Amino acid sequence: MKAEEALRRIYEERPLIHHLTNYVTVNLVANTTLSVGALPVMAHALEEVVEMVGLASALVVNIGTLDPPFIEAALIAGHRANAQGIPVVLDPVGAGATSFRTETAKRLLSELSIAAVCGNAGEVATLAGLTAEVRGVESLAGDPREAATKAARAVGVTVAATGETDYVSDGERTLAISNGHPLMGRVVGSGCASTAVVGCFTAVGGAEAETVAQALAYFGRAGEVAAKGAVGGGTFESQLLDALAGDPKGLEDTLQVKEVPG
Amino acid sequence: MKAEEALRRIYEERPLIHHLTNYVTVNLVANTTLSVGALPVMAHALEEVVEMVGLASALVVNIGTLDPPFIEAALIAGHRANAQGIPVVLDPVGAGATSFRTETAKRLLSELSIAAVCGNAGEVATLAGLTAEVRGVESLAGDPREAATKAARAVGVTVAATGETDYVSDGERTLAISNGHPLMGRVVGSGCASTAVVGCFTAVGGAEAETVAQALAYFGRAGEVAAKGAVGGGTFESQLLDALAGDPKGLEDTLQVKEVPG
Amino acid sequence: MKAEEALRRIYEERPLIHHLTNYVTVNLVANTTLSVGALPVMAHALEEVVEMVGLASALVVNIGTLDPPFIEAALIAGHRANAQGIPVVLDPVGAGATSFRTETAKRLLSELSIAAVCGNAGEVATLAGLTAEVRGVESLAGDPREAATKAARAVGVTVAATGETDYVSDGERTLAISNGHPLMGRVVGSGCASTAVVGCFTAVGGAEAETVAQALAYFGRAGEVAAKGAVGGGTFESQLLDALAGDPKGLEDTLQVKEVPG
Repeated sequence: MKAEEALRRIYEERPLIHHLTNYVTVNLVANTTLSVGALPVMAHALEEVVEMVGLASALVVNIGTLDPPFIEAALIAGHRANAQGIPVVLDPVGAGATSFRTETAKRLLSELSIAAVCGNAGEVATLAGLTAEVRGVESLAGDPREAATKAARAVGVTVAATGETDYVSDGERTLAISNGHPLMGRVVGSGCASTAVVGCFTAVGGAEAETVAQALAYFGRAGEVAAKGAVGGGTFESQLLDALAGDPKGLEDTLQVKEVPG
Repeated sequence: MKAEEALRRIYEERPLIHHLTNYVTVNLVANTTLSVGALPVMAHALEEVVEMVGLASALVVNIGTLDPPFIEAALIAGHRANAQGIPVVLDPVGAGATSFRTETAKRLLSELSIAAVCGNAGEVATLAGLTAEVRGVESLAGDPREAATKAARAVGVTVAATGETDYVSDGERTLAISNGHPLMGRVVGSGCASTAVVGCFTAVGGAEAETVAQALAYFGRAGEVAAKGAVGGGTFESQLLDALAGDPKGLEDTLQVKEVPG
Repeated sequence: MKAEEALRRIYEERPLIHHLTNYVTVNLVANTTLSVGALPVMAHALEEVVEMVGLASALVVNIGTLDPPFIEAALIAGHRANAQGIPVVLDPVGAGATSFRTETAKRLLSELSIAAVCGNAGEVATLAGLTAEVRGVESLAGDPREAATKAARAVGVTVAATGETDYVSDGERTLAISNGHPLMGRVVGSGCASTAVVGCFTAVGGAEAETVAQALAYFGRAGEVAAKGAVGGGTFESQLLDALAGDPKGLEDTLQVKEVPG
């Protein structure tokens, strides 16, 4: 689904996006979700997580500050999301940095039906079984195109690997997204925020590679708009939220998505 | 108490406001508290929550990301606040969305002596036993005037229901507040922040309907000021904090509070 | 180590800074770390905290929203940091406000080898056994020079006490830092952020008094730059992050650090 249609449907339907996410960037994730027109909710308690997923149109699981209760909530929420047929998007934050993160990402992929995985090159490479260097939650090396394509084949779902150029692959087709701006790397959680936008798009458009790529292109385009007049990451972050809520008219001509060899 | 007097007393006394709140908007809640001149503190551990409440001039309980340990801390903190005679303000975030939230809000109202309830129209309608639609933490329908008035009668305390127009009722008098700006709906946690301002005002002025209404009018007026030059929710949020810390001189002429039929 | 050299080495080495910190200001702490060029990570689960510290170049422990699991994680992480010889920086947020915070700060100082302590005047005075008034997490009275010097002698490590003028002492030398701006007091977490900068500097330069003082001077100087055009705490916070990422060229002439009697 193209970005303009996805955004139009989000504005009309106001889907609830349930986030099980980290406590570092949770506010940015919530505001990102609201900025594109969807409704964010965070609810982790076992007493309500299933009922809240029942109201939602997508579930986004971000393991940025995981611990055993988080994993339990993610599994329960994920099973419920699977049962009602809404997409589950996984951001494997820090996979490759510690074995706990790597193993948890793999466990979620194995026990749940994940619709799309979005991570940085190192995290995605880790899931593909490739060598990667992940320092904390930052990818220091790795080829995002190879990572996306191989991980998509390895796990059998749509995979996005973000970087200077983002790549999205379903294992057969691979799409390159050139939108974006270097200031995005100066904001903690820009990766989490891009995954949130993917979650919003999948809520109305499903998780085909084209839709995921359009979400990332839209996010990157907002970054280009936000960079105007921004001095650094601080002013940029505020303007990024403004830009994500901007008028999508004429958007299609600004998004740079093209198919590339995998 | 009028807003100008409340703000003057807050600046003089620097009351400590103890927040038991959610992890999504906690930073905005803290900065809002500081911006109006009070001192925020967040402390949930059973080892210290009673001692910290002992230093505080008001307790604000916001159930936005509740779980059993949170509820236990809220009950213990609330009992201590009741014992020392400081106001307890409740924001029943998401009441009506899940039964866990609805039941928890009712339990806190039943076991504690709450001074004021502040929520959106759907949450407050839920507490009044009216039909409401709450999607996650967002109210999609409901008449805030009826909700505030009926909930105030049902629970016997001052109740504020926020919306395009805010309504505050003590069950006998109902006040309408027309200050505000649509950009407030584009910031996650603007409702939590308005409850924080109510908490600050009650710390120096008590929880009569007039004082709660003045707090909401002041918050809404800050939103009007902040909207100037704001492009979207991101830049608006920063400017809202600036405006909340602005000079209150001449404030009275800008606040729009009037009594209406309940 | 001088600030220019510390920043140059941070840009080159991109050290991972592991933060065990509070949920109120965690996002500001992470963005501050990234803004000065280091890589922030937050990881508290016992399943990974040791492994993550193993990747880190410094550990910052901030007790702003402590509870027993937090303390357990801090002790385990701290022991690992000690074993691998990386600096551990402690921010004793709220020491003096509740006995739980005071005792926890003392316990961490006793069980771990702490490289530097950074707190406000009241918190540091508490650790020195001096009388202090700490309301929540805010220092309302106390002489930061005396607090820093006496605490440094009492605990035997470098101690920074922040205030209008910051003081850093190793018990023998005491340094006064005059950089800073009143708007810093209008942002929740400016103290936590300054401690984060200290953590980054110690990762490349160790925890001698001169290096800690340079970190605080750099943070204060960024505040002076950020204040230009800021209306209040909201816009100031964004601009502070921009300023922390600014070009350090010519920095030395702007930093005001001088030795004073202890």
